[in-house]
Amino acid sequence: MPSNESCEQILYILPNLIGEHEAFIEMIAIEHPEIKKLNHFFVEKEKPARALVKRLHLETPQNDLLLTPIGKHQSSTTYLNVLKKVKYDIGLISDAGVPGVADPGSTVVLEAHKLGFQVVPLAGPSSIINALSASGLNGQQFTFHGYLPVRTEDLKAKLTDIIRDSVRTAFTHIFIETPYRNMKLLETLQQVAPENTLFCIAAGIQTSNEFIRTRRIAEWKNSGFPNIHKVPAVFLIGHNI
Amino acid sequence: MPSNESCEQILYILPNLIGEHEAFIEMIAIEHPEIKKLNHFFVEKEKPARALVKRLHLETPQNDLLLTPIGKHQSSTTYLNVLKKVKYDIGLISDAGVPGVADPGSTVVLEAHKLGFQVVPLAGPSSIINALSASGLNGQQFTFHGYLPVRTEDLKAKLTDIIRDSVRTAFTHIFIETPYRNMKLLETLQQVAPENTLFCIAAGIQTSNEFIRTRRIAEWKNSGFPNIHKVPAVFLIGHNI
Repeated sequence: MPSNESCEQILYILPNLIGEHEAFIEMIAIEHPEIKKLNHFFVEKEKPARALVKRLHLETPQNDLLLTPIGKHQSSTTYLNVLKKVKYDIGLISDAGVPGVADPGSTVVLEAHKLGFQVVPLAGPSSIINALSASGLNGQQFTFHGYLPVRTEDLKAKLTDIIRDSVRTAFTHIFIETPYRNMKLLETLQQVAPENTLFCIAAGIQTSNEFIRTRRIAEWKNSGFPNIHKVPAVFLIGHNI
Repeated sequence: MPSNESCEQILYILPNLIGEHEAFIEMIAIEHPEIKKLNHFFVEKEKPARALVKRLHLETPQNDLLLTPIGKHQSSTTYLNVLKKVKYDIGLISDAGVPGVADPGSTVVLEAHKLGFQVVPLAGPSSIINALSASGLNGQQFTFHGYLPVRTEDLKAKLTDIIRDSVRTAFTHIFIETPYRNMKLLETLQQVAPENTLFCIAAGIQTSNEFIRTRRIAEWKNSGFPNIHKVPAVFLIGHNI
């Protein structure tokens, strides 16, 4: 296998904190001492990026950092122009978890590939993977949908589709919701899901209040849903294979 | 949100090494000192599990560990019976990466949920997430297929389906292959994929020879594919959104 040539510029993908567990940041600094020299980052929001950089004890003082925003209002041409100009390695940081996975950043990475950058992903926690491994649902085949539709009728139709597919294909279906709409999502699901549908709620992942439970809808109706209003959560629908 | 009650037994999901980066194991020991007391593990294979346990510096000597195999020949009833009997916390370890995600273990976890165990996933590296974040492809919606069909005609049909779906829905499609069949997979893909299909090869993840590149099929035809015969790899097909 051709190893990556050392003359290439590198785009480092840095995971940010999810929940309260910070030790993995120490790990990044131990595994990749070279990132301490970075001074230019693509960032989703400045504050969470600066907090991560501070924890990494970079050699560059905070005042000398160059932060290029990645947001809805930036185009891929903007990223391409920035990447074309830089003559050094560069980092990418989103607000929580892994950039580019249920988080912005993928456009920057694709432009970097086009310019021949080496892209190096640093391992960090992913709430999707934590939720899936702890759900007990099929992790050999799964689909991540991101956010489902907001309108109730569209949401019902989408959930119905998902449940039907999970029975037909045995794929696990994973989705998220804006935290203040969590309880509405649970209520809607309860209306459309058959009693035997396996449903996992994974809320507050990597916090001291982490709550991960898989039950059939009939059992959820008995136990009641937990109050996860405004708590970041991952939801999973599966079929007993 | 109701926090998990302390009287419950816990099933800890322990990630195992992928590649050569070991520092995250130190992290697990720092974040979760309570796992040093574990003495009973569900394991995919004994040797990789013992290697992980050794790195974690458990209090229990290796000779006193109780290892329950999870394999193709075990039924969920076996797991249920073991879980019913144990009166202490227990761990789950697969050979590499996160148990239950492209790896065995989910059946044990589902039985643990049925018995009211608290399930605690410990964060570790996932080659799927590393590959996706470094691919530059859509990480807001994606499907993981595991292994694709082995028979050439079935493989062609499946790849064609996947490419069609990635154009239609913009979902990224992720799959893996038995490493000694990697080159055959690349050859087959080259035959069926349109020139403008975005294709990422992520091989040797978390090793010193990590190779992650996203190119259009036309560009791969120009550059040639890397020799990744027998190198563990994740493949991703995407659509430029």
